[in-house]
Amino acid sequence: MSNNKEIAVGIDIGGTNSRFGVITNEGEVLMHDRFPTSSYPKAEGFVRAISRKIKDQLKQCEGYTFKGIGIGAPNGNYFRGTIEQAPNLGWKGVIPFVDQFKKFFNERVVLTNDANAAAIGEMMFGGARGMNDFIVITLGTGLGSGLVVNGDLVYGHDGFAGELGHTFVYMDTGRKCGCGRRGCLETYASAQGIKRTVFELLADSTKVSELRKLSFEDMTSEHIFHAAQNGDRIAKEAFDLTGRYLGIKLADAVVHTSPEAIFLYGGLAKSGNLILNPTIKTFDDHVMNIFKGKVSIRSSELNGKQGAILGAGALVWKKRK
Amino acid sequence: MSNNKEIAVGIDIGGTNSRFGVITNEGEVLMHDRFPTSSYPKAEGFVRAISRKIKDQLKQCEGYTFKGIGIGAPNGNYFRGTIEQAPNLGWKGVIPFVDQFKKFFNERVVLTNDANAAAIGEMMFGGARGMNDFIVITLGTGLGSGLVVNGDLVYGHDGFAGELGHTFVYMDTGRKCGCGRRGCLETYASAQGIKRTVFELLADSTKVSELRKLSFEDMTSEHIFHAAQNGDRIAKEAFDLTGRYLGIKLADAVVHTSPEAIFLYGGLAKSGNLILNPTIKTFDDHVMNIFKGKVSIRSSELNGKQGAILGAGALVWKKRK
Repeated sequence: MSNNKEIAVGIDIGGTNSRFGVITNEGEVLMHDRFPTSSYPKAEGFVRAISRKIKDQLKQCEGYTFKGIGIGAPNGNYFRGTIEQAPNLGWKGVIPFVDQFKKFFNERVVLTNDANAAAIGEMMFGGARGMNDFIVITLGTGLGSGLVVNGDLVYGHDGFAGELGHTFVYMDTGRKCGCGRRGCLETYASAQGIKRTVFELLADSTKVSELRKLSFEDMTSEHIFHAAQNGDRIAKEAFDLTGRYLGIKLADAVVHTSPEAIFLYGGLAKSGNLILNPTIKTFDDHVMNIFKGKVSIRSSELNGKQGAILGAGALVWKKRK
Repeated sequence: MSNNKEIAVGIDIGGTNSRFGVITNEGEVLMHDRFPTSSYPKAEGFVRAISRKIKDQLKQCEGYTFKGIGIGAPNGNYFRGTIEQAPNLGWKGVIPFVDQFKKFFNERVVLTNDANAAAIGEMMFGGARGMNDFIVITLGTGLGSGLVVNGDLVYGHDGFAGELGHTFVYMDTGRKCGCGRRGCLETYASAQGIKRTVFELLADSTKVSELRKLSFEDMTSEHIFHAAQNGDRIAKEAFDLTGRYLGIKLADAVVHTSPEAIFLYGGLAKSGNLILNPTIKTFDDHVMNIFKGKVSIRSSELNGKQGAILGAGALVWKKRK
């Protein structure tokens, strides 16, 4: 009783929890679940346990053709199928993640970093359908990016292309970054970045703000979002500054690959116009003339859906030219 | 009496003079000549006259198979075969350059900007043979760049990708650029840029320098090169600063496409280690950890040869995937 539809499994590896699910090649999410990453001190144990869960899910998908597993993971290397020195995961060193999955599955297993998976998802199921040249920016704890050129994801010679979070807003000066340098874009434009901006503003100004009640450890970008929605001036200024930093560096980015659109995806991007408006304004004010009016900056169409699972699963169908 | 070798014509369009010549698919330049661009107020007249010269050259190439004409031109648009609003050419507006050549030739006619042509030349005949991911930076009056990703030149959705000369060294502040903005890399790292740096240094310091004898109009990057070779401290400092600006922005560039090499081509690049050493040092000091030690920055292998003609001619053979 085949319905001729193809399905794939998408897995989004997170430091605390991973999400996984079964999707169709038309972008339906048939089922999805969470799985505790941090409960498994070794990757092998995690892979064995989640593989069992996945096989349970697949048993409920009779009639579909199962094509394989796509994985989005921090520091995921597409060429080697490995997760390499991911700072937010408990698993250290270089993990041969694809090989570990292949012990349990005969189908295609593909892995890349989470931002690249988001870009593939946008191309297959989101706003980038039909586009050959675009960029996805993921605004999570850090800032990730996936670049698509000529219809293919840009991996670069070593698999590590697309680290726009580590371009310089300020050279040599600026905020200390997790990468060891100073002044990187992700220290300004990310969930952590906007919090750092709020703390600078709280220190600099005497404005009343509900954010003065929260410690650095307690404050999240959701607090800042809700404060801004309540009209909090410090929170709104923090969004404006975040968009400004992002818009200027996107003006630098477009001269590299001339994309027709830039999609903002993930936690901070869900703040909608609070982040989009200052980003677009600053971009328009700063972008080189020949690109003016050509680049659409907008919210990812996968925001709010099971975007990470869709992106990871899409990897199974997307073959490189 | 065929020798089975293929030939193409390469044309490098310059504001005052254009250069053209016949090359083989093995990178030999069989003949080359100059032609006065600025003597022709209209592009049509130029194309008619140079086509006659080219046909004369081709008559002397019996036994070879003529494959077509490749053209490198400022503001050349690959997709449309046009030269668009080139500030340094007398021909205004959008010139349908390829169509004009096709009146005289039945073979393939391909056009792109000069920096993209240099990148194709490097890939076919220079140091980038066998590479899939690299960047060529042309240091002439301005700063141009050609990006190659997955073995294909990056044109972007509109044909204008690769304008690294218009990334920001300083946002909003910094030197006025021909593009209308301030702080662009090409106002620092180019023949004009290094001269502007010399003038800042002459104003700021009291050091003796042979460059104090020259007006802004008279001074060229060759004067600065020779002064530096003579040990002039202002000239050497200007090279160091130029390399510093370039090295920092190249550290930003590599996170986009992760190239395995960056080639410096053109006038200023011929200064060799004077420009290479500070560029490499600053790049190494600033590049993100995961790219450290992976990117080779070096002089183009086409420097000093008929590089512009080789690059333009190579376009005829290089087909996109």
